Parts: sequence; structure tokens; C-alpha cells
Amino acid sequence: MTAPLCDTSLAITYNDIIAARAAIKGCAVETPLLESQDLNRRTGGRIFLKAECLQIAGSFKFRGAYNRIANLSEDAVKRGVVGWSSGNHAQGLAAAAQMRGSPAKIVMPSDAPGVKIENTKALGGDVVLYNRQTESREEIGRALATELGATLVPSYDDPFIIAGQGTTGAEICDVAASRGAALDAVLVCCGGGGLTAGISVAVAALSPRTAVHTVEPAHYDDTARSLVAGERRANASDAPPSLCDALLAPTPGSLTFPILKKNVRSGLVVSEDEVGEAIRYAFTKLNLVLEPGGAVALAAVLSGKIDTTGKNIAVVLSGGNIDPALFASIIHPKTEEIR
Amino acid sequence: MTAPLCDTSLAITYNDIIAARAAIKGCAVETPLLESQDLNRRTGGRIFLKAECLQIAGSFKFRGAYNRIANLSEDAVKRGVVGWSSGNHAQGLAAAAQMRGSPAKIVMPSDAPGVKIENTKALGGDVVLYNRQTESREEIGRALATELGATLVPSYDDPFIIAGQGTTGAEICDVAASRGAALDAVLVCCGGGGLTAGISVAVAALSPRTAVHTVEPAHYDDTARSLVAGERRANASDAPPSLCDALLAPTPGSLTFPILKKNVRSGLVVSEDEVGEAIRYAFTKLNLVLEPGGAVALAAVLSGKIDTTGKNIAVVLSGGNIDPALFASIIHPKTEEIR
Repeated sequence: MTAPLCDTSLAITYNDIIAARAAIKGCAVETPLLESQDLNRRTGGRIFLKAECLQIAGSFKFRGAYNRIANLSEDAVKRGVVGWSSGNHAQGLAAAAQMRGSPAKIVMPSDAPGVKIENTKALGGDVVLYNRQTESREEIGRALATELGATLVPSYDDPFIIAGQGTTGAEICDVAASRGAALDAVLVCCGGGGLTAGISVAVAALSPRTAVHTVEPAHYDDTARSLVAGERRANASDAPPSLCDALLAPTPGSLTFPILKKNVRSGLVVSEDEVGEAIRYAFTKLNLVLEPGGAVALAAVLSGKIDTTGKNIAVVLSGGNIDPALFASIIHPKTEEIR
Repeated sequence: MTAPLCDTSLAITYNDIIAARAAIKGCAVETPLLESQDLNRRTGGRIFLKAECLQIAGSFKFRGAYNRIANLSEDAVKRGVVGWSSGNHAQGLAAAAQMRGSPAKIVMPSDAPGVKIENTKALGGDVVLYNRQTESREEIGRALATELGATLVPSYDDPFIIAGQGTTGAEICDVAASRGAALDAVLVCCGGGGLTAGISVAVAALSPRTAVHTVEPAHYDDTARSLVAGERRANASDAPPSLCDALLAPTPGSLTFPILKKNVRSGLVVSEDEVGEAIRYAFTKLNLVLEPGGAVALAAVLSGKIDTTGKNIAVVLSGGNIDPALFASIIHPKTEEIR
């Protein structure tokens, strides 16, 4: 990173987030921090919703991907980027690469949500599908990168990615402070931990008394258990399927976990039903489209996983890329697909 | 109005919008002016989306209702307000009344979208249902107001309402200017004309070279035809049904039409299919929930009703209160309700 690493034991410092903010300025959307009368009444607190579902390519992932590409040499930009992702990083990377004029190869599982595959292609990404049961995306991605001389852009375990996602936290802190609210907590969905790690570094610098919590779907609570254990733990290989396709990383990252361990208060866990309820709430009361993985932090608040009474709590709505059929079945369970 | 009326031939002047902005500050949401890479690429222009679907109670109507109540005497606030509406004014008025501690009676047709009736009740509105075929909402409303000593709050033909809705236009002009964009046009959905009238007064003051256009659904193009005729024309009484329940006012208002006549360039008209396409686009690419009446201006842009090439165009996304069953059937036409 160009900024000095004050604490060399961690992948990034707040200076890296300052640099990332400058890099993405005018390219990423400074997404609104929404408030809802209904939600405040229902929770007895003041809830600040960071609407990253309104980000370019529909999730926060654009921030990190753009920051990574902005820090490549001109020559490396021309040679292109390679990434693997079940969907949101794919779209964010494709959008960032398109904006910077860099060719992007994206390795995606053949069972990823159709809308994510289509959107990645629409954003100029050259999509390479693989079979999640029989092939390794890492092997395919590394082979492609070597063949093309392209740069691998990981979805979370990379300092530029973590710093880029961390800009979300800096914006939350700045806007909450401008509204006179001292944040008691920030709730962040967690897959590999890039978003939470970045946000936690921003929060530690800008609002050190604010607690950061991860939120994960049941059976994919590797981060919550790793935080308790003090070392990285993995999800069970036979975990039942989850709607939260964006949050199924098997374990926290090697760069993200030391940051989470230092900065995160605890990990919260929500059920699939609670996620569905949050998606319906966002549809009915907020007029926002959330995908399951993007709704877990809201689900934690709505289902009482954290005390909200009299508290100022920021909730990251991290993404909204969801297949129409699934969304229709969640908001209106009486519908059924015609076969 | 407290502000001087410079042109006494019209119901409001820009000074009334300045006063309304001060009245709603900190109570209404300053909704974001969103931009979408995809939409800009598709239209060849720069499109600014004013997301009033993120307003309190899910549509711009809160602005006018709040401004009306903020200008009542303390005594009148206590006696309460009465309004009639198919839904969005109902919810906006209920929310504003609840915030100011004023009892609200809302007269709604029994065939209004269920979600709008439920939300009005959830916001503390005392809903009185009537039969649209056999009863007069005006008679019911006036009788209630007389009985209770309450203030009638019309949905568009009122200077405070028009000025309140006009704050939307002032925010659009300010934010577009702060981004260095000279607006070529503003597209606004039109029912009775309160929103367009208010916006047009703000635009005439802040960005006089910007053209204002109304957008209406086919068969309910009373405003477009009135603008051509130079006098108020009505919709046919046997017009086929429309999904755009928010835009079915029979004719432009007596206070709004003189303003529209002076300030509006022309009226655009979109089909029901084009409205559905816009709702799907907002769902897929913007992660926003729009109701049919809230999507007509976006529909006009997507279907090429106005030249967008190289142009800066603001589009008002006026509301997002839609029944889940209808939304599901629009975003995923292969779903069908189980009977």
C-alpha cells in the first residue's frame, strides 16, 4: 500500500482507507444512510441503514475492486484482471474493470444466481463457469492469470480490497456524526470478512467507542465461532444449503481474521426465516430490494439479536442482486412457478 | 401562505417553496439523486433519479402533507385533519399527522391497494372506506371535517401541498448543480398535478432553461391533452383500468393547471407495458421498488419518449407502495397466485 502501515501486524491501517476514499471518489456512489420512522419505532432505537444495494453493480464489492485496479500499473491494467466469485465480487470487479478499461475474466460457479451471471456479462466480464462439486475455482483462476499475465483480484484477502470496502465504514461514521448521532454499534454481514475488516478499521479510527458485530446465516457462522475460539474455524462441509449465496466462504480470511479478532465485539447469527422476514420488511417499508446475504444485518436488528432500545445502530444493507423468481417467492409466498 | 405571492395569478411562488423547505427540514428525507452507469449507457445521456420511493411513507406525498400541517394553528392541529386518497396521500398525511400529534381521518376507496390501506392504518390513520362506484369521497370527507372541526387536506389543489411537493424540485436542482450538471429536462409523473406544479415553480426559479415534462399512463393523459388544448380536459369516463392507481385523477387541478400551463413544456404518455418494463428495470438494475405510478417517468426515458442522447435528465421516481402479489407478477411473470 502507498500509505504507511503503522501496525505492521495487520493488513491495513486507517491511512489505507483514506487513500481508498480518494481513489474511488466520483466513481463509486456515496450511498445514502437511510432512516425509517417505522424501523425506529419498531426497534425503540435510531437505526441508520447504509444502502450499499444502491452501489454500482448492486453491492459494496465495487469499492474494493475499483480500489485494487486503481492501484495497478498502466501496463497491468492493460493485461487485465482475473477473479472468482459466486456473484457480487464478480459484478463489482467487472464494473470496475470496465470503467478503467481493463479486460476481466471472471470464474463463477455454474449454479450461481442467474441474475448475477447475466449482470457480470452485461458489465463486460468474460465469464468462465465451473462446476462447484468437481472443479477448483482457485486452480482455474490462477491458470488463467498466468496464461494472460493478468492480476488476480481476490474477493477479500487483499489489502486494497479490505481498504476499499472500509470506505463504507468511513462514510457511515462521517454521516452519523454529521447528524449528531454517536453510534453504539455497527452490524455488518460477513462472508470472508473483507467488508467487516475494512469497516472495523474505519470505525476504530473515527468512532472508537462503537462496537462492530458481524452477522452470518445459521450453519455458516465460521466467523462467530472463530471470534470465540480466537483462531480461524471452518463451516461444516455438510452444512445445509443457505439462501445467502454471498456469505458462504468456508472460513474467515488469513488477512481479514487478525483484523476481525482485534476489532470485532462479537458475531451474531440469524436464521433463514429471519432473513426472509428482513427481505419482506425492506420491500414493504423501505422500498429497497435486498438479496439474502445483504439482509442479514437488518434481520439481526428485526429479530432482536442485539439490544436496540435507545441505541444508535448502523446496519449495512450490503447488496441487492437477487433472482426475480426467488424474490417473488419471498415477498409473496403464495406465488408458485408455473412448470 | 406566509411568503409573498409575487405573481398573484398563480397559487404559489418560489418563496413558498423556500418556506416549505424550512418547514420540512429534518422531518422529510432529503432523498438521494441516484445515477446508474447502466442507465446512462443505455440512454446515451446522464440520468438523475430522484428516489422519492425512499421518502417517509414511501412517496413524495409526505412533503406536502407535512408542510400543510406545519402551517396549521396549534388548535387546528389538535382538532385534526381529514383527507381522501387512493393511497399515497393517505399514507403521507397519516405519517405527517402522527409526527405532529394530529388525529387523521383518511377516506379511502375499498378497492385501494391493500398495502396502502394497511400502511395508512399502521401510521395511525383512522381509515374510512367507501365504495368508489356508489359513494362520493368528497361528500364523506367534508361531512367528517365539519363534524370534527378538522381541516381538510386536499391531495393536490392546495398552495401548501403544491409548495411542499415543490421542495423535490429544489433538491433536484441543487444537487444536479453541485455535480456540475445543467439539466436539460425534468420528467415528473402527473395525476392531479401537485408534484409537477411545485417542481416546475422550483425549476423555473433555479434552472430556468430546464424543460419540465409531465408523464402519464395511456388513457389517463388528461394533463397532456389539457396542455395542448390550453384548458382543462378530463379523462374518458370509460377509460380501461390502469395499474397506475396513483395517477387516475380525472382532470388537472384548478390551482395546479394554471401553473402547469405556464411552466410545462409538454406531456408524455407511456403504455402499461412500458410501465411494467420500468418496474422490472428498477428491480434488476437499481434495487429499488417502484409502484406503477412511480415508474412512469422512468418508463418514458427507457422507452425513448424523449431524446436522451448527450442530455442531462432528471427523472422523479415518485413512490414505491405496491402490493406484493402485483410486484411479484411484474418482476417474474411466470409466477401465478395459488387459488
